[in-house]
Amino acid sequence: MGLPKNCSLNLYSKWPRGERNLITDVPGVTVGHDTIDEGDIHTGVTAILPHPGNLFRDKVMAGVSVINGFGKSTGLVQAEELGTIETPILLTNTLSVGTASEALTRYMLEQNEDIGVTTGTVNCVVTECNDGRLNDIRGMHIKEEHVRRALSNAAADFDEGAVGGGTGMVCLGLKGGIGSSSRTVKVDGKDYTIGALVMSNFGAAGNLVIGGKHYDTRKCMEECQKDKGSIIMILATDIPLNERQLKRVARRSMIALARTGSYSGNGSGDIAIAFTTANRLPHYSDCLILDMKMFYDEEIDIVFEAAVEAVEESIISSLYHAKTMTGIRGNKYMGLREFLEKYGEN
Amino acid sequence: MGLPKNCSLNLYSKWPRGERNLITDVPGVTVGHDTIDEGDIHTGVTAILPHPGNLFRDKVMAGVSVINGFGKSTGLVQAEELGTIETPILLTNTLSVGTASEALTRYMLEQNEDIGVTTGTVNCVVTECNDGRLNDIRGMHIKEEHVRRALSNAAADFDEGAVGGGTGMVCLGLKGGIGSSSRTVKVDGKDYTIGALVMSNFGAAGNLVIGGKHYDTRKCMEECQKDKGSIIMILATDIPLNERQLKRVARRSMIALARTGSYSGNGSGDIAIAFTTANRLPHYSDCLILDMKMFYDEEIDIVFEAAVEAVEESIISSLYHAKTMTGIRGNKYMGLREFLEKYGEN
Amino acid sequence: MGLPKNCSLNLYSKWPRGERNLITDVPGVTVGHDTIDEGDIHTGVTAILPHPGNLFRDKVMAGVSVINGFGKSTGLVQAEELGTIETPILLTNTLSVGTASEALTRYMLEQNEDIGVTTGTVNCVVTECNDGRLNDIRGMHIKEEHVRRALSNAAADFDEGAVGGGTGMVCLGLKGGIGSSSRTVKVDGKDYTIGALVMSNFGAAGNLVIGGKHYDTRKCMEECQKDKGSIIMILATDIPLNERQLKRVARRSMIALARTGSYSGNGSGDIAIAFTTANRLPHYSDCLILDMKMFYDEEIDIVFEAAVEAVEESIISSLYHAKTMTGIRGNKYMGLREFLEKYGEN
Amino acid sequence: MGLPKNCSLNLYSKWPRGERNLITDVPGVTVGHDTIDEGDIHTGVTAILPHPGNLFRDKVMAGVSVINGFGKSTGLVQAEELGTIETPILLTNTLSVGTASEALTRYMLEQNEDIGVTTGTVNCVVTECNDGRLNDIRGMHIKEEHVRRALSNAAADFDEGAVGGGTGMVCLGLKGGIGSSSRTVKVDGKDYTIGALVMSNFGAAGNLVIGGKHYDTRKCMEECQKDKGSIIMILATDIPLNERQLKRVARRSMIALARTGSYSGNGSGDIAIAFTTANRLPHYSDCLILDMKMFYDEEIDIVFEAAVEAVEESIISSLYHAKTMTGIRGNKYMGLREFLEKYGEN
Repeated sequence: MGLPKNCSLNLYSKWPRGERNLITDVPGVTVGHDTIDEGDIHTGVTAILPHPGNLFRDKVMAGVSVINGFGKSTGLVQAEELGTIETPILLTNTLSVGTASEALTRYMLEQNEDIGVTTGTVNCVVTECNDGRLNDIRGMHIKEEHVRRALSNAAADFDEGAVGGGTGMVCLGLKGGIGSSSRTVKVDGKDYTIGALVMSNFGAAGNLVIGGKHYDTRKCMEECQKDKGSIIMILATDIPLNERQLKRVARRSMIALARTGSYSGNGSGDIAIAFTTANRLPHYSDCLILDMKMFYDEEIDIVFEAAVEAVEESIISSLYHAKTMTGIRGNKYMGLREFLEKYGEN
Repeated sequence: MGLPKNCSLNLYSKWPRGERNLITDVPGVTVGHDTIDEGDIHTGVTAILPHPGNLFRDKVMAGVSVINGFGKSTGLVQAEELGTIETPILLTNTLSVGTASEALTRYMLEQNEDIGVTTGTVNCVVTECNDGRLNDIRGMHIKEEHVRRALSNAAADFDEGAVGGGTGMVCLGLKGGIGSSSRTVKVDGKDYTIGALVMSNFGAAGNLVIGGKHYDTRKCMEECQKDKGSIIMILATDIPLNERQLKRVARRSMIALARTGSYSGNGSGDIAIAFTTANRLPHYSDCLILDMKMFYDEEIDIVFEAAVEAVEESIISSLYHAKTMTGIRGNKYMGLREFLEKYGEN
Repeated sequence: MGLPKNCSLNLYSKWPRGERNLITDVPGVTVGHDTIDEGDIHTGVTAILPHPGNLFRDKVMAGVSVINGFGKSTGLVQAEELGTIETPILLTNTLSVGTASEALTRYMLEQNEDIGVTTGTVNCVVTECNDGRLNDIRGMHIKEEHVRRALSNAAADFDEGAVGGGTGMVCLGLKGGIGSSSRTVKVDGKDYTIGALVMSNFGAAGNLVIGGKHYDTRKCMEECQKDKGSIIMILATDIPLNERQLKRVARRSMIALARTGSYSGNGSGDIAIAFTTANRLPHYSDCLILDMKMFYDEEIDIVFEAAVEAVEESIISSLYHAKTMTGIRGNKYMGLREFLEKYGEN
Repeated sequence: MGLPKNCSLNLYSKWPRGERNLITDVPGVTVGHDTIDEGDIHTGVTAILPHPGNLFRDKVMAGVSVINGFGKSTGLVQAEELGTIETPILLTNTLSVGTASEALTRYMLEQNEDIGVTTGTVNCVVTECNDGRLNDIRGMHIKEEHVRRALSNAAADFDEGAVGGGTGMVCLGLKGGIGSSSRTVKVDGKDYTIGALVMSNFGAAGNLVIGGKHYDTRKCMEECQKDKGSIIMILATDIPLNERQLKRVARRSMIALARTGSYSGNGSGDIAIAFTTANRLPHYSDCLILDMKMFYDEEIDIVFEAAVEAVEESIISSLYHAKTMTGIRGNKYMGLREFLEKYGEN
């Protein structure tokens, strides 16, 4: 739902929000979480399904921007080479990427008997942030079942905040997590949607900016911190962009990130992935020449602006929905709403 | 001089400014302008000399970030491959890149009799923005003499605003131009400087942000505009960074750019170049193994932050120092100070 | 014409050659040269026109691969960002890139009154190799008139060898220059062409390989040489590839290069540009969503193979057609045919 | 051992081979395999340890070249951003990357109690090729124990051919696998080594080239094949190169690949990683400025040439040492030696 309409944290919004103000306003996109939140374990998995069909047979066009490559996400190299995504996108903790990747591989094999026999292999996209400040990340608590549940929970409605992959995340000195938002633009007389979902775990305490205003979150912390952690930013749209254009859109995520207080610190794996449901690439085709659509670059700024707005609101929304959490080693990170109540808006 | 100390446009500054608050606070760096400002012609050349010696024989280590490649700058491909800059860096208007490149080639040949005879050729770095909104850019008024004068004018003190390459530039609906600023950081107990110089010509009217606050510059304009134009951002430092690290620093310029209101529009050639005077690469060497220094990446955030601050202040400074100009076809762009006086700060 | 049909230098060719065995077998593509070949001056300009219409208004889709970026070509950054070429492609000597770029800018301004007034600027593509081993390159003898003549000479039939931009080039210890070749492939029941044109100036004497066989060209030289110089490889096709796919095709040029004896030496600017005449991008468009075609990647190997064959034959053809030349400082480079006559094929 | 000295398959070798003619000629580098070769299962794991110490605390400088990104290797994004490798490098089958990554994560956590608690996470490098033509790849038979055994088997002497990660690989219509070779070069009067190890699984039957000579391997096959599969090429050296230079060296692997018959087919994940043991980056450092060494680029061609030779011989050696294998679905691929015995060398 992004930020609620009556929220005092006004973000400048030039483009109208979508109906749910979620990435799932893009028709066909669904999101599911599975959350582990007990004792020292605060972690989980979030899954984004670009469309409800067979993703391996009917790939979506995609572009990737590695803003700062201190990250262990998988599947980005092939997405870049071929301009496609052919699996759900998973978001989880850093040390569980291998496990999640194995689980996603098994899920894809079940759905596609041809993989590895009569056709090639499959490129699983798994992204991550380090939730070790709150979660017992060394315990590697994510198992295949959690990935399965996140995938089967996928729906148009989903929660934000400390859920799924975002459960144990920390952002700008506060509790981070999953946030989402969307914008609509009119193109050639028709309405299109661009939606974002982020897993926020970046930024130094003291650097938070909301709508241009600094908030000093060091007030609520015991010790100052470097800009660490990371952010995963997923953009979905039904606008017909090609892979070069999707990469350009993904790259603009950095602008949203900058506006919330990031310096893209050394240890921050800042990764953006953009896909469109409007250009599909078949795994099997009798024709070698395929019809595609692309956007007239000269007017693409409306897409850039809407994307930046959706990502910026997603980041603030991830903070807004996350509640104060005390995790491993007694580490405590305050939710934005509690912070604002305690320390006021100034 | 960046923004004057008593300036009401407060920018958050974590790191102390250098003595001049200019890129030339980095020891050895000099800057020169040549300006043509008469009739319909409002253009010029700015030259940055990384050090006072023979640049071809004693190259500086460098990194490049093409933030948005709608641009015609030359020399970036080789700078990327070899991690060096071996000529002064020129900034001029888009249609004069060829002329400036020819002039710079002649200048380098004069200084180096070996080029093209007993050794290879030379890689000239010429960057550009489109000043056609104020300047008769089709007239291609830059000649070899202007390049020569900019080079020979190079000094530690130099003007900002509508001078040199920045003469006819437009930024965020106001008059743009050349701006510069610097920051100092302490590393291993020693003081180092990071300086920035920008040629600002980017952004849509209505998007200006200074210190987190929006200013609606459409008030002073006849018609709204797309995010067009471009920006060149040059970073100099005496911190020993290697070419990968300089590229990382250059990439962070986008954060500064985002904070002043850019969406990195389609038509905006947003290019950043960072060099260090602390790692020199000899053109001739008897030894094949060379000693270099690099920075411990784990602590490089201080460099990133100082660089972002210097670029952000350079952009605002370019607006601050540029005065209102009426150019070709009667186009008029207001200077920031006149804008603030007329429309107030709110 | 590539290698003549009865030539003893058999190159393995899986795909049939086009009618002319030139890049101009791709319908609409034309090539023109202007050559200066007197005294110590051995240089020139070659122009490739992707189609006979207004290139600025009707751009061709393109991809670039910088195999080794020791090179001063211009226009590559924007071609990469936007996936288009909007001017003829020029090939000349390294120190004349500025002059050629200025001349091409003037040519484009004449044809397009809107540039720099009601629309943006133009991105000129000028590529280069260093012909200083034979040519008085420091003399900077290329003037605007030579560029003009190369452009107006453009036709479907053109010479290979020591002509145009290739006049003073040296390759693998022999006389290099311009070479071209083409291949045809059947796609969805229809014939398509992929053509190549190279300006060869790369490689160390002693490394020449033709059809897998080494030829020791050090026999005909006074002193051994490092792998220096460069190569420009232009690929044209009427197959509907998108910009990502054109980049992939361009990248495969390195395979052809490797097979003729290159190690892609440090000082060799190895640049490949591929464009298709089948996907055109309008400068002006009322619709924001454009129809394009792309290739089914799963079957793109036929394009890769045909491209590699065309580039490999172009390189050998450039040597085959170039005659022995004595240039500046008495430097002499033997033509391949004279070399083979003198030293035999073994 | 690369190719045996008395082998009839002469490869041109300008640079002397190292003592073992293996990647382990680079002091400190070790290699271990674990092989599963029973019934329909023909797969395994190969581990390369860059040095015998704690790799996480004492990282090696590295560069990556994604020649064709149809591949699922992990850890490349961070290696590119930071220029380092901080774990052993694993080679295995495509669908086991997740499992191998999880196992390598556990191995690293055991050795480093600080990971995920007082310091950040770890970037595991796992590379892969698709062995599904011979192996029951869908069975996902690689388990943690196989990774552990490959790591603990690491030694200076190791086998080539159908072992470890190379067990079920297929190359150019023949049985592929693991191959290795090395070269020595003299720099500033001192001897240095550059070694290569490949896992070969690329190329179309009919395209094999050894020393410039074509071999038609379609003779021994039932059906012709597209250029599929992949190749992983690892380069190790004790020459002090920096990360940019290591990337340049890695990129030259494509030249070796081209010379053995590859067209870098669409479905071929061609990945090269180069590291040096001579530049180490500490995980913890009190000093922010670190001393490093780099190579004088002007003379780096000797490194490029030696690297190309080592990779080319590694590829041929992988074929030479692999014996004929019949795998899943009765698929049979002949070893190079049996092929040459049966069909002669012409």
